[in-house]
Amino acid sequence: METLESHVGGRWHRASAEFVPIHDPTTEEPIAQASSHGIDFAAALDHARSTGGAALRAMTFAERGELLMRMSKVISDAREELIALSLRNTGVTRKDAKFDLDGASGVLSYYGYLGKELGSRRFLVDGEGSQLGRSARFWGQHAWAPLRGVAVLINAFNFPTWGFAEKTACAFLAGMPVLVKPATSGALVSERCARALIESGVMPEGAFSFVSGSLGDTLDHLGPQDVLAFTGSAATGASLRRRERLLEANTRVNIEADSLNAAVLAPDALEGSETWNLFLRDVAREITQKSGQKCTAVRRIFVTRERLALVRDELATRLADTVTGDPQNESVTMGPLATAGQLEEFVAGVAKLVRSGAEIAYGTGQRVDGVGASPGRGYFVGPTLLVAEDPDAAGEVHRHEVFGPCATLMPYDGDPERAAELVARGGGSLVCSVYSDEEPWLADFVPHAAAWNGRLYLGSEKMAEQAMGSGLALPQSKHGGPGRAGGGEELGAWRGLALYMQRVALQGSRAMIDRLLG
Amino acid sequence: METLESHVGGRWHRASAEFVPIHDPTTEEPIAQASSHGIDFAAALDHARSTGGAALRAMTFAERGELLMRMSKVISDAREELIALSLRNTGVTRKDAKFDLDGASGVLSYYGYLGKELGSRRFLVDGEGSQLGRSARFWGQHAWAPLRGVAVLINAFNFPTWGFAEKTACAFLAGMPVLVKPATSGALVSERCARALIESGVMPEGAFSFVSGSLGDTLDHLGPQDVLAFTGSAATGASLRRRERLLEANTRVNIEADSLNAAVLAPDALEGSETWNLFLRDVAREITQKSGQKCTAVRRIFVTRERLALVRDELATRLADTVTGDPQNESVTMGPLATAGQLEEFVAGVAKLVRSGAEIAYGTGQRVDGVGASPGRGYFVGPTLLVAEDPDAAGEVHRHEVFGPCATLMPYDGDPERAAELVARGGGSLVCSVYSDEEPWLADFVPHAAAWNGRLYLGSEKMAEQAMGSGLALPQSKHGGPGRAGGGEELGAWRGLALYMQRVALQGSRAMIDRLLG
Repeated sequence: METLESHVGGRWHRASAEFVPIHDPTTEEPIAQASSHGIDFAAALDHARSTGGAALRAMTFAERGELLMRMSKVISDAREELIALSLRNTGVTRKDAKFDLDGASGVLSYYGYLGKELGSRRFLVDGEGSQLGRSARFWGQHAWAPLRGVAVLINAFNFPTWGFAEKTACAFLAGMPVLVKPATSGALVSERCARALIESGVMPEGAFSFVSGSLGDTLDHLGPQDVLAFTGSAATGASLRRRERLLEANTRVNIEADSLNAAVLAPDALEGSETWNLFLRDVAREITQKSGQKCTAVRRIFVTRERLALVRDELATRLADTVTGDPQNESVTMGPLATAGQLEEFVAGVAKLVRSGAEIAYGTGQRVDGVGASPGRGYFVGPTLLVAEDPDAAGEVHRHEVFGPCATLMPYDGDPERAAELVARGGGSLVCSVYSDEEPWLADFVPHAAAWNGRLYLGSEKMAEQAMGSGLALPQSKHGGPGRAGGGEELGAWRGLALYMQRVALQGSRAMIDRLLG
Repeated sequence: METLESHVGGRWHRASAEFVPIHDPTTEEPIAQASSHGIDFAAALDHARSTGGAALRAMTFAERGELLMRMSKVISDAREELIALSLRNTGVTRKDAKFDLDGASGVLSYYGYLGKELGSRRFLVDGEGSQLGRSARFWGQHAWAPLRGVAVLINAFNFPTWGFAEKTACAFLAGMPVLVKPATSGALVSERCARALIESGVMPEGAFSFVSGSLGDTLDHLGPQDVLAFTGSAATGASLRRRERLLEANTRVNIEADSLNAAVLAPDALEGSETWNLFLRDVAREITQKSGQKCTAVRRIFVTRERLALVRDELATRLADTVTGDPQNESVTMGPLATAGQLEEFVAGVAKLVRSGAEIAYGTGQRVDGVGASPGRGYFVGPTLLVAEDPDAAGEVHRHEVFGPCATLMPYDGDPERAAELVARGGGSLVCSVYSDEEPWLADFVPHAAAWNGRLYLGSEKMAEQAMGSGLALPQSKHGGPGRAGGGEELGAWRGLALYMQRVALQGSRAMIDRLLG
C-alpha cells in the first residue's frame, strides 16, 4: 500500500497518522493511503504567499506562459504512467483517463499560448480607455493586477489531473501561487501528477503546494487577498459559502458545482436529420462518459411529447452498447463509480427520482457485476434512463442530481418559452444543450435559457461534424453557472484569470497610465 | 410632518403604523416620517419580476437608453425643489446637494448614451469570438443576458438620489427591474425624487418599486435570479453576506462598503509644485465635502516624515477656511452630520483613534455649534485632522472608519513598497490616490496598491488642471473595492451591467450565433 505525501513549504511532508485509505473501485482493494497530519497549514500558506507569490509576480505573462508550457510537457511525458494509474485508482476506462489527462496538458498549453500573446506585461489591460476630463490629460483605463495571496484549489474526484491543472493554469498566468487539494479518492493519480510537476523543477519555489488528505485548518487562515476555488457538490459548495472565516475576511470564493444540466430537442430537428443524430449521440455519451461522473453531464432531457417513445427507444438502443466492467478489460466501455459512497448515493438517488414520479425505461439503477471483475465486487452500475411523463409533478428530477450514468427524459409541448422554463427548474446549471436549426425558435429560447446557464451549446446541422459534445469544458469558453451551479466562473480565455486578480480603475494622465501598463 | 409613501405593485402605499421619524439635522426637528407597514413584499417582488422584468427585457439597449435619458431629464427638471429639500433633510450645503443630484441625472444620462451606442441588441456581446473546431463552423462567443429576477437596491443616507440612480441606471440598461430602498434618514429627498420619476410616467409598469421605511421580509423572498446591491457600512454589508436565505438561494450580493481610503504623497512631488498643490486641494476637499460622509473620502494620508509638519500645517490652514453651520446660511461651507447617531459615532470614533495613538492636530472631534443654527442644536462637528506618528502602532487608524470630516496624517519612509504596504493595512479600499510624476516610483507602487483598491487615482502635474478629485465616482470607472470595501463592482461603463446579467458562453455554428446576437 502506497503512502501519499504532501508538498508544502518547499518540501515533501509524509504523515505518520490519521490515514484515509484509497480503494481500487474495481476490486475494492485498498491501494494507497493519504493523510496531511502534522502539516502547519498557516506556515504553508505564508510560504506560498511570500515565496511563490513574489516569484510569479516578478514574471511577465510571457514568462508565466512559458512555465505553463513546460508544465504541460511534464504531464504529457508522464501520460502513460498516469493513464495506467487512473484505471486502477479511479476505475475509468483508458479513453476516459485520456479525457482527464489530455485535458490537463491541453489547458496548461492553451494558457501557455495565451501568456505568450499577452507578452511582456504584468497587468492585464481591460477594455478600451476613456477620456474623463476635457482632454486625454485626464484619462481612465481599467486593468487587472494579481492578488497578493494564495489560491486554495479544492477539486472533485472525477478529474484528478484536469481539475487542478485548469485552476492552476489560470492562477499561475494571473500571477498567483496555489495550494492544491484534490479529492482523496482519486489522490493517487493527483499526487503522481503533482510529483512529476514538482520534481521536474520547472515551477518557482512556493508557487505550487499540494496536500494529500485533509485541508486541516487551512480555510481559517485565509484573508482578503486569498482565493478559494472549489469544484464539487452543490452541498459542499453551499457549506463553504457559509464558512465564518471566509465571510469575515471577505475571501473570494468561486464555486463550480454539479448541476441538473438539460438537453432540449427542438421540434424542427426531424428524425434522422444531422441535428437529431447529434442530439442522440451527445446525450448517450453524456450519460456514459466517465460513468456519468461529470459536473457537466446531461441529467434532464426534454423532447416533444409525440417523440418521447421514439427518443426513449433510440437512447436505450445506444445505451445497450455500453459494456460495464473492469477498465483493464478491453471490451469494457464504462468503468465503475469512484467509491462505495458514490455507489450508495447513486442507488438511493435513482430510487428518489422514481418515488418522485419517474419510471425506469432502461437499466436498473442498481449495482451490477462488472465484466472482467470478480462477482459481487466493484462499484459497478449500468447506464440508467428514466422517463418522467409529467415534468411538473416530478419535482426531484429538477432538484436531485444522481451523479452517475443516469438521466431523465421528459416531454414538453414544443414551445421555446416552456422549454426554457423547464430548463430553469434546475435552479441554475453549468450548461444547457439545445438542438435546433430554426433561428426564430432559438431566438425565443436562448435569452431565457442564457439567464439560467453558464454555457449554451447550440447543436445544429452546421456544427454537427465538428462538435465536441456539451460536456466538454473548453478553455476558450467559460465554465460555471448561476444559482445551484455555484455562481462561479472559470476558464473562458482571459476571463479565467479574473478570479485571481483585482480589477482596478486607473485614473490619471494618459501618458503615465500607458507607460505603467506597458 | 410629511408622511412618506412607498410605491409597490404598481401603486402608492401609505402606511398607517410603525413610523420612523426623519429629522432636519440642523434643527433636530422631525420633518417627516416613513413606514413600510402593511406592504406585501413577496407580492411586490413578484410584480416587479413579472411585469417590470418582461417590459424591460422586451426593450432593446437603445430603447432602455432612451428611458434613462428621460429619467435624467425628470430629475433635472425637479432639481431646484430637490436641492431645497436636501438642505433641510440631509443638512448638506447647496453645493453638496448639487453633487448628489447632478450625479444622479449625470449617471442616468451617461448610461442613456451607452444604451444608444449598444443599439438594437438585447445581448451584451462580451469580447471577440473564437474558433473552437477545425473551422468557424464550431464557434464560441461570450455574451451577457439579463437576469430574470428583481434587483433590490439598498442605499446609504449620504447620496439620497445618486445612490439609487447609479444602480438603477445599470439595472435598467441591463434589462432588470428594481426595488429601491434608500436609507430612512435621507428618504424625504429620495421619495420626492422617486415620486417625480414615477409620476412622470416614463418608466414601464413594475420596473421601478420604491420602499419608504423598512424592507420587512424582502430578503427572505429573493432567489437565484435576483440581485441585492448594497451600499453602506462594512458592518451591515458583512451581515448581509451572512443572511441565510441569500446563501441558500445563492442570490448575487454586491457590496460597496465605506473603507479606509488612503492618499499618498510620493517623495518627488515638491513643495509648491502642481502635484503638491493638487494633493493638498484634493485631501482638504475630501475631508470636508458632504461633511466627510462619502464612502470614497480620504481617511488616511501618508507623506514622508520630513514633510509631516508642513503638510499638517498646510492642511490645517485649508481646513480653517471651513464654515460649519446651517446650510441655508450663505457663508456656510459644511453642513451638519446626517443624524444624531452619526454624530455620536463620529465623536466616539475620533476618541477611539486617539486612544490608538493618533493625536488631534486640527479641530476637536467634538460637537460644535453651527453658524446660523440655534446654539446647542444640530449635529455639527468641525473638520478634524489627526496625526499618528507611528502608523504601525496606531492599529485602529487602519481599521476604524470615522464617517465624517476626519482624516489621519501619517509618515512613511518614501519607499513605494512601504507606502503600498501601509495602504494595504486598510484591508481593501474603494480608492487610493497617489501624487507623483515619477514613473519608476509609481511602477513599484501601483501593482501592489492595485491589488488592494478598486480604483487608483494618479495625481500628477499633467492631469492636475482637469482632475476632478479622488472622491468622485465617475460612471466611466468602476466603483467598488476588495476585502473590507465589500468586493463589489459598480459602474465602469458596460462593466456596471454585469451585476444584473448572466454571462453565458455560446457554442455553435458561427452563422447562428451571429444571427442570435444581432
